[in-house]
Amino acid sequence: MEKPLQLGLAGLGTVGTGVYETISRNHAILEARAQIPFAIRKVAVRDLSRPRDVELPPGLLTDNWRDLVDDPEIDIIIELIGGTTEAYRLVKAALQARKPVVTGNKALLAEYGSELFQLSATMGVPLYFEASAGGGIPIIQSMQNSLICNHIKSIIGIINGTSNYILSSMELEGVSFETALARAQQLGFAEADPTFDINGWDAAHKALILTMLAYGTPLTSDKIYVSGIQGVQQVDFEFARKLGYNIKLLVVIRHHDDTDALELRVQPSFIPNDHILASVDGVFNAIAVDGDIVGETLFYGRGAGKNPTASAVIADVITAMRESLHPEHHTGFHPYDKERRVLNINETVTPCYVRFRVADRPGTIAEIASSLAWHKIGISATSSTKGAPDEHGTMWNDLVFILHSCPWGQLQAALAEIAQFADIDPSPAVFRIEKLGTSST
Amino acid sequence: MEKPLQLGLAGLGTVGTGVYETISRNHAILEARAQIPFAIRKVAVRDLSRPRDVELPPGLLTDNWRDLVDDPEIDIIIELIGGTTEAYRLVKAALQARKPVVTGNKALLAEYGSELFQLSATMGVPLYFEASAGGGIPIIQSMQNSLICNHIKSIIGIINGTSNYILSSMELEGVSFETALARAQQLGFAEADPTFDINGWDAAHKALILTMLAYGTPLTSDKIYVSGIQGVQQVDFEFARKLGYNIKLLVVIRHHDDTDALELRVQPSFIPNDHILASVDGVFNAIAVDGDIVGETLFYGRGAGKNPTASAVIADVITAMRESLHPEHHTGFHPYDKERRVLNINETVTPCYVRFRVADRPGTIAEIASSLAWHKIGISATSSTKGAPDEHGTMWNDLVFILHSCPWGQLQAALAEIAQFADIDPSPAVFRIEKLGTSST
Repeated sequence: MEKPLQLGLAGLGTVGTGVYETISRNHAILEARAQIPFAIRKVAVRDLSRPRDVELPPGLLTDNWRDLVDDPEIDIIIELIGGTTEAYRLVKAALQARKPVVTGNKALLAEYGSELFQLSATMGVPLYFEASAGGGIPIIQSMQNSLICNHIKSIIGIINGTSNYILSSMELEGVSFETALARAQQLGFAEADPTFDINGWDAAHKALILTMLAYGTPLTSDKIYVSGIQGVQQVDFEFARKLGYNIKLLVVIRHHDDTDALELRVQPSFIPNDHILASVDGVFNAIAVDGDIVGETLFYGRGAGKNPTASAVIADVITAMRESLHPEHHTGFHPYDKERRVLNINETVTPCYVRFRVADRPGTIAEIASSLAWHKIGISATSSTKGAPDEHGTMWNDLVFILHSCPWGQLQAALAEIAQFADIDPSPAVFRIEKLGTSST
Repeated sequence: MEKPLQLGLAGLGTVGTGVYETISRNHAILEARAQIPFAIRKVAVRDLSRPRDVELPPGLLTDNWRDLVDDPEIDIIIELIGGTTEAYRLVKAALQARKPVVTGNKALLAEYGSELFQLSATMGVPLYFEASAGGGIPIIQSMQNSLICNHIKSIIGIINGTSNYILSSMELEGVSFETALARAQQLGFAEADPTFDINGWDAAHKALILTMLAYGTPLTSDKIYVSGIQGVQQVDFEFARKLGYNIKLLVVIRHHDDTDALELRVQPSFIPNDHILASVDGVFNAIAVDGDIVGETLFYGRGAGKNPTASAVIADVITAMRESLHPEHHTGFHPYDKERRVLNINETVTPCYVRFRVADRPGTIAEIASSLAWHKIGISATSSTKGAPDEHGTMWNDLVFILHSCPWGQLQAALAEIAQFADIDPSPAVFRIEKLGTSST
């Protein structure tokens, strides 16, 4: 019988508890499948006196993560303490102590990924991070192993469950953003402070990780353009439905062959109802990866939550255990390519949906259409609904333009001009219309 | 610089050519990502004189696969010769010679899987088979690694592209089965002899592989109930649409907790239009895996074809190379659990759709309904359409019953009785109605 490998678990919050419980509950099947005996040797927590949801054998707990790194018997460290200060120190110390690390900390990788993966490469000690993007969806291992022979043409995905729950509620039940958010918080699908889910930055951190895997080197977070779902209104869902679209907070990562540049952005977007991504509702995530050899693939599942995330962490733990016995050919990430130019958002090109609120008087449509024409932006469709009178008795209508493909910057110039016109609300609702790969044949 | 690992490729048909071309075309990115230098040393083909789509350096070809197994310089064998006779001999000889094998041969694994995986376990030499199910979809590595901590509750999937192309054409374009098949053949989505795609056996072989991964031991093909799409008619799509369903050839693998038994079947089935599987059209495949920890996941992509399959083969080749340097903890399959009882098809329970052709005279509905009631089968809905008169002037109508959940055997008993009645076509169309996990929240 081999000597069991020893794990050090740092953090016993939601996901840490899920990992501990799952390893206890499904231990037999894990050892049978992996054929590696293992045990959890120490668990580091911040506060030893805090009551726990899970019962731990006495002597397992410590309130100092250095006890894990310094223990020569511990083979692998699982970092689930969150944040970027202590977590950074822990991961760095563990790699320096030649202990492979499993983490699900996307904020840590967004901030310190470049340094940590360099350290991992220098030390020859892997850093695994399946749980950092897509929750239970095995997108990281799939990108690193299963799709390894592919030049990645694009990655398009819904990778924030909270914002998708809110948008789905707005679409399916006709409720307002505020109502949908309040209910998501009630049901535990949104945190008390949902800022980073709603403003797009949680999705952006995950997008940076996927970009790194696809294109070979970590990118800093100033490279990605991010816009959230705060401004999405019920009236936009009504127009979207009429036009055959759904609205999703979409991550778009695309390689432009002609210039070797990357497009990299998070924006609420219109997607055609017949594309499979349009059916991804509630807290589910989905990531469509288009490779030059494999074609279009899509991965779908629960993008967050205690157990789905624990499932991803444990997959990494098993890989870490297998590879800890021969780290020279580990599957952890190492930088393998130069940094590519990232397009400025103004250079990126899609069709767009723009909804203006305009006073009901002759000439406003003509003024908007003339300005768009002057900026050489074609109109493929228009639609409008009667509004309600304001306190001065002026009727305000919603006026929608579907615009042909043009650079985002060109549209912004036209919108800046239109914002000067009288009787037009200067802040129109603007959504990209995403052209997605065919789902058939 | 490490000594390059040497590959032996057996078979240069469609997929073999795809593997050779992709390894040539994307060689730089493969070595950069995997950090293992490698080369193809020999390629075995049946007929040296046959013209090839791909240009090979002189001296690479042999017409004897034993040259690959016997070459001490060759580290890994890729079996893509197809069939089960020579392929069986080759894989067995390679494992005995301690060379890891990559194969995409589902028929081979269905017939000889038990023996070959036993040999692999005994020799400690891995057999990889990502390309044997789901084409470019990384379902095998995901089941083996990413979902390793999960007890699998069910696997439900569309895993035959040809039959899905035919059913999609029937649904989307209203054409007959025969027209859809002919066009699939024209476009290269169906073989000249499409028997195993249409009768469900290709899907069944893949289902056996997924079952083995999920439940720990190979099963023989007599354990699976298989029914194909030959009998699906346009009128069934019309009723399905009215009722909110789509028709798919569905693989259902389900573990019954209470009895520890497996349900295992391939049948054309009604699935609700709001489930993501209902949107899987054309030659695409999708596999929904429900695990006790991860919850519902879904994997989607091209299930067949030269390049998608090559992508899967090459993923295995890279894994095989990494692990060939330390085979003691390889990720290839080894049997790890006892064989479970498989339910007889008559024990399996779902709601059903049954369409009878009945002569237009008073009493037929009452007769059918009485027989169903006598067999304790509840009716949840009925629907009918006027038919056309036959040569005797008798009108034949389509009469549809949606039945509550009941064992398949109980329904068969009722149908056997109804087949005796006058003025009712004795071969009704019967489809399972699949209850699928929720796709939202």
